[in-house]
Amino acid sequence: MNKNSQGAIGVFDSGFGGIDILRDIVQELPKHNFIYLGDTARAPYGTRTQQTIYHFTEQGVKFLLEQGCPLVVLACNTASSQALPLFESRGSLMGIIKPTVKAALYSKPERVGIIATEATVRSNTFLKEIKKLSNKTEVFQNPAPLLVPIVEEGEESSKIAELAVEEYLAPLLKKNIDVLILGCTHFGVLEPKIREQVGKDVKIVREGPVMGNALKHLLETNPKLEKNIKKKGKLRFYTTDLTDKFIRLGARFLGKKITAEKIEL
Amino acid sequence: MNKNSQGAIGVFDSGFGGIDILRDIVQELPKHNFIYLGDTARAPYGTRTQQTIYHFTEQGVKFLLEQGCPLVVLACNTASSQALPLFESRGSLMGIIKPTVKAALYSKPERVGIIATEATVRSNTFLKEIKKLSNKTEVFQNPAPLLVPIVEEGEESSKIAELAVEEYLAPLLKKNIDVLILGCTHFGVLEPKIREQVGKDVKIVREGPVMGNALKHLLETNPKLEKNIKKKGKLRFYTTDLTDKFIRLGARFLGKKITAEKIEL
Repeated sequence: MNKNSQGAIGVFDSGFGGIDILRDIVQELPKHNFIYLGDTARAPYGTRTQQTIYHFTEQGVKFLLEQGCPLVVLACNTASSQALPLFESRGSLMGIIKPTVKAALYSKPERVGIIATEATVRSNTFLKEIKKLSNKTEVFQNPAPLLVPIVEEGEESSKIAELAVEEYLAPLLKKNIDVLILGCTHFGVLEPKIREQVGKDVKIVREGPVMGNALKHLLETNPKLEKNIKKKGKLRFYTTDLTDKFIRLGARFLGKKITAEKIEL
Repeated sequence: MNKNSQGAIGVFDSGFGGIDILRDIVQELPKHNFIYLGDTARAPYGTRTQQTIYHFTEQGVKFLLEQGCPLVVLACNTASSQALPLFESRGSLMGIIKPTVKAALYSKPERVGIIATEATVRSNTFLKEIKKLSNKTEVFQNPAPLLVPIVEEGEESSKIAELAVEEYLAPLLKKNIDVLILGCTHFGVLEPKIREQVGKDVKIVREGPVMGNALKHLLETNPKLEKNIKKKGKLRFYTTDLTDKFIRLGARFLGKKITAEKIEL
């Protein structure tokens, strides 16, 4: 730990979608300190090239490590899928895709559907991770790019959201999937609309609860890491562009008021 | 002019929306050389703070000036509304909002409606510029944030686009507007859907033709400036993130194939 260490778990996302994940993590680990960084000046990442996503993610992770975070969680599927495999040392980094895949395969599905950003789908990271664990499982992916701005505009209950969800799910539902992975941090808040479309027989994997459990398990099995994290229940927020929306939607996602500090990467 | 001068007119936009404007400009000035820069690594700008939009725009303009552009056109309403008033010397900079307002007021409307990004609406630049020229004209603005990603996803003919256009125009149509300004470079391609909603009696101001005419007029009345621009009909494209989408949608907007070079700002 460096001398400025805040002894917190770092949580990185391209914007504020990861705050929906943070809420579930904090529910599991209410006493642990967390630092959240959202790269709001350059979000969304899902439409950019791998090179650019890696460059931006590296800068974000570096900032969190410099704050003395003993562990950084990439709470962004795009960043995890595009950048995580490129980091040389993953020791202090935790991605979101492997825990999600593990949870999705728990019920031994035959056909798994995934909606995610364009970059995540293009990377085939979900596909590869599923095949590593269960070679026979069939996998169907569909990029759902409009769902991110729909959530960011607070339109998740609108008719527009309904139409978009219908359009993106249709090709997956035709394949008779058993499990649907919501492979983007923003999509959790669309779960009610998605449930309407998929019916009650398809298991929906929402990443917040998955990450809460996975992180709890990681700390329980790594006492050295666990020891380095302060437990005063503190949450700090940093952003690269301090918009009203970060404060407003962040509070809605987290379920309580937040304040944030602007930094440059 | 510096020794690296390409003697071209610079055209800056946050992404590739400005290519729709460039097409109309080139139609008016087919022999002039142009350099287009799209900040695709950090687009869209419309949801960011003024401070960040100014910072990004300044970097883009600086790059174009360093290429020896005798004139830079800000083909982005968000950048024009948030950043243009902050540049100390506007000598070599041309914004998009004043020409658009002039065109909108040509028919002496009583009630003008504007759809634009959140940042453009928040700046009240359209409102202020209209009031300067025509104090009695009533002005009604509505942010239309989802229309940008809808166009970027190539969904401009979809049912989703129809619903979104309907939602954003409804409050303006209630005010009985005579003229509707499409105050974002992306919205031009939605003109057919917008026309369906507003009926035939509302005049729609699309910025491409406006800017083509305005730039032609500026050069005709400024022979010194005109003299510094090379006329070999060359178009060069630079981006901060070289995505397939820039090449694909850029070609669709421009009406011919394009190549682009990646740069860092």
